[in-house]
Amino acid sequence: MLRLRRVPIDFCGDNIVFIHRNNETFKGSTLDSLSKVEIHGGLKPIYGKVVLVDSEDIVKPDELGLSEAGFSNINLPEGSEVSMVPAPPPASINSVQRKIKGGVLSAREYRAIVSDISLQKYSKIEIAALQVANSSFLTPQEVLAMTEAIAEQQPVMKWNRDIVVDEVCLGGVPGNRVSLIVTAIAIGAGMCMPKIARKAVGESSSAIDVMETLCNTDMEESDIRKIVEEIGGCISWCGGKFSVAPIDNILLDVEKSLSIGMPQQMVVSIMSKAISAGVTHLVVDIPVGMNTLVRTMGEAMRLRKLMEYVGDMLGIDVNVAITDGSEPIGRGVGPVLEARDVMNVLRCSDEAPRELREKSLFIAGRILEFDPRLRGGHGYYRAQEILDSGRALEMIKRLIHAQSRNTPMPLGQLTRDITAPVTGVIESIDGNQINRIAIMAGAPGDAGAGIDLLKSVGDEVEQGEPLYRIHAVKSMEFAFANGLAEGNSGFKISNDLSAQYA
Amino acid sequence: MLRLRRVPIDFCGDNIVFIHRNNETFKGSTLDSLSKVEIHGGLKPIYGKVVLVDSEDIVKPDELGLSEAGFSNINLPEGSEVSMVPAPPPASINSVQRKIKGGVLSAREYRAIVSDISLQKYSKIEIAALQVANSSFLTPQEVLAMTEAIAEQQPVMKWNRDIVVDEVCLGGVPGNRVSLIVTAIAIGAGMCMPKIARKAVGESSSAIDVMETLCNTDMEESDIRKIVEEIGGCISWCGGKFSVAPIDNILLDVEKSLSIGMPQQMVVSIMSKAISAGVTHLVVDIPVGMNTLVRTMGEAMRLRKLMEYVGDMLGIDVNVAITDGSEPIGRGVGPVLEARDVMNVLRCSDEAPRELREKSLFIAGRILEFDPRLRGGHGYYRAQEILDSGRALEMIKRLIHAQSRNTPMPLGQLTRDITAPVTGVIESIDGNQINRIAIMAGAPGDAGAGIDLLKSVGDEVEQGEPLYRIHAVKSMEFAFANGLAEGNSGFKISNDLSAQYA
Repeated sequence: MLRLRRVPIDFCGDNIVFIHRNNETFKGSTLDSLSKVEIHGGLKPIYGKVVLVDSEDIVKPDELGLSEAGFSNINLPEGSEVSMVPAPPPASINSVQRKIKGGVLSAREYRAIVSDISLQKYSKIEIAALQVANSSFLTPQEVLAMTEAIAEQQPVMKWNRDIVVDEVCLGGVPGNRVSLIVTAIAIGAGMCMPKIARKAVGESSSAIDVMETLCNTDMEESDIRKIVEEIGGCISWCGGKFSVAPIDNILLDVEKSLSIGMPQQMVVSIMSKAISAGVTHLVVDIPVGMNTLVRTMGEAMRLRKLMEYVGDMLGIDVNVAITDGSEPIGRGVGPVLEARDVMNVLRCSDEAPRELREKSLFIAGRILEFDPRLRGGHGYYRAQEILDSGRALEMIKRLIHAQSRNTPMPLGQLTRDITAPVTGVIESIDGNQINRIAIMAGAPGDAGAGIDLLKSVGDEVEQGEPLYRIHAVKSMEFAFANGLAEGNSGFKISNDLSAQYA
Repeated sequence: MLRLRRVPIDFCGDNIVFIHRNNETFKGSTLDSLSKVEIHGGLKPIYGKVVLVDSEDIVKPDELGLSEAGFSNINLPEGSEVSMVPAPPPASINSVQRKIKGGVLSAREYRAIVSDISLQKYSKIEIAALQVANSSFLTPQEVLAMTEAIAEQQPVMKWNRDIVVDEVCLGGVPGNRVSLIVTAIAIGAGMCMPKIARKAVGESSSAIDVMETLCNTDMEESDIRKIVEEIGGCISWCGGKFSVAPIDNILLDVEKSLSIGMPQQMVVSIMSKAISAGVTHLVVDIPVGMNTLVRTMGEAMRLRKLMEYVGDMLGIDVNVAITDGSEPIGRGVGPVLEARDVMNVLRCSDEAPRELREKSLFIAGRILEFDPRLRGGHGYYRAQEILDSGRALEMIKRLIHAQSRNTPMPLGQLTRDITAPVTGVIESIDGNQINRIAIMAGAPGDAGAGIDLLKSVGDEVEQGEPLYRIHAVKSMEFAFANGLAEGNSGFKISNDLSAQYA
């Protein structure tokens, strides 16, 4: 028996078990650093990984220390008696091994895997192995099975409406902040659109990061319900007081560490989250471009079919839009800058970036056409009406008020213009590089950091003319971003002027 | 600038960076728990992963804490000024992403990957991704490239001999402790066989674990050289005072966590270690059976060709023996029990397990035939001569004396016989299950723990007759092993007696 102790170290949700090297239970046992163990003493056993400690200041030889997540998971006071035994590998790891060797797994196997993951029986290494194996191929039936397995592990939200819509984008296009505008238009048309989404992971911004510059997004479930009943929608964070799809978050953590795009896993993630959020009708935007997750039409088409199949089997009406992801949409990249663009579109201001307005109307049109009362082909025009009449602006203002307004966040005051090295025509903009520079500048953590694009593809520029402005809040980040932009601005300028006349 | 502090926690070789949540550099930066960082201040930057700490007892807000491996890698005194910046993903991760998508990598790409791994730029998750991707397929050229890349990172031992032999087994067969006997025979024949091997990983024993019950195996390079020059060989641990193939150990750590057999990676591991150890002639034993790493003749044959190709390209003469891995070889499973069997074979005692003697002579014969002076086909008989004349026994005694004898380790005193549930004939023995039970009983950490097999496949047994005896040192392990054996003894007994006459 060991006495429980909290070790105030945050391993990002991992249960880490701290054992003194002279611990009697440990010494001479088959345990080693990084061995997996089962800890008994709480209501249910919890699973974690051992690390050895050489200082009694952290744990004493008769204590068992748990990292912050572990301590909160075991749910016992410090000093409680606990015991530890070696954990066998999770039974479902055999299925992962089969998958690695190229096998096709059954729905039952995916259920066992997901259940073991949710019990923290899998190490991150094992999850990585699963995901890499999955990324080599998954049959449509496997994608469906994994989606259902994840959805089964989490509660489903119920809304008192026949049609509950949502819109999701596979990402990779900087400044592509249509979600807020689409939500405002959809609820302006009387539809129900509870947007419960995650913050940016490996990107410079997200709908939630942008909304957070305007109002609170971290709400209890009861508050979300109240707002949705009243206004028809919300724009709320899925990882705070109210958490949707925790397993999906575990998987995403590992994907983030791998920085590997896995389109089929994205389908699993999107569809399982749609089930949990109680969505009945979903528009999926797949941008195709050189720097997006999906790079060819063929791949986009395969993903569309896969989404449609999984949606049909789960009773979710899926409408896939394959869009142009070749260049940034909008002008700002980073939360505050994107909020400015979004509000300019909603206000129908002259400053509104045209492509952001157009893409928002296009996606909103698809959403509105889910309404059986609307005549086919009229979605876009109905969306335009709602936007131009100011109704969408009114809706976003009501949401901001209901979710409780923030004091406006300022734009980063450290700025630098990146200029054209030669006179010519802008041939292309590398969205990945723009994203990376914005992230280096501090986005999305520093909401005021990011990039303000001043030129688009096809524009003529003179040597020395600004291409974009970097904004940062902190000097270290500012220096990093400048260094990155100097090495590679992300803009390709053709100064062979004859090309224009070709 | 932060002040360096040692945090006495052992993360199994990982550089973990402990940062107080209120650290000024950290707050508002783009860093997050588990972000990868570069730490400057030492001779070379070191790479690590951040975890957040909420207690000033572990690190103060103006300190940067490093786990034991990190502190030893940065090689600076506590209190030194260090700084930290976010580490970009290693450049070679793009190649890993290509491999995951099914690409074939060039030698240059493998060199970059291995170099980044050795600099600790890869997280374990990224290494796992590489290995799972590699396990789906590797061309022979890729196996060669990865082997060479690993070998290039480590020094090569040089011996003053034209022929330096070794023997290696792909594993999975309990009690298969031929290496010690083969080494004794080879050096008895005047060959040079410096066996520098690892301890058991995920298995109940290894040549080194067995040798350690008899004498010291952890020696400095100069001691190893002296013993090899004097006696012609040694049986020494590769992970202690003298370390061969550290990168291979990093890869193996992840493989161990995955508990996934990866035969092609095994080839990389075996061949890169052979280069580093200065081996010129190598016998590789591939046991084929239901419970071994390689389960079919087809797979064994493909591995043989791969070994031969890599060996030819690297100038190592490889001789592959495909052997029967369908049942345990020898009687004991676990270090002390296996040492007993090995010594019985060397003493030509009546107690010597016949199959262990036969397999040792077979493998030793292959080794001896590397000697150009020996007539083809005479290896087995020459090995038999050396064993039966007592010369092999003399050699092992000289090795034990030179490496400095231990006080004999006792057999575990907690014992229990597992008996036949029915009368019948033993149809099969599941080597994996036998291994697992021995590990649960405490092997190889408790040298005296393990399993003593009392019956073989084909034996007739009466109900209640003992099949094997579990030995353990500690009562917790004893209970685990008994529980595991009760659930599944690993023995399959056919009590359909008519089957015998069929």
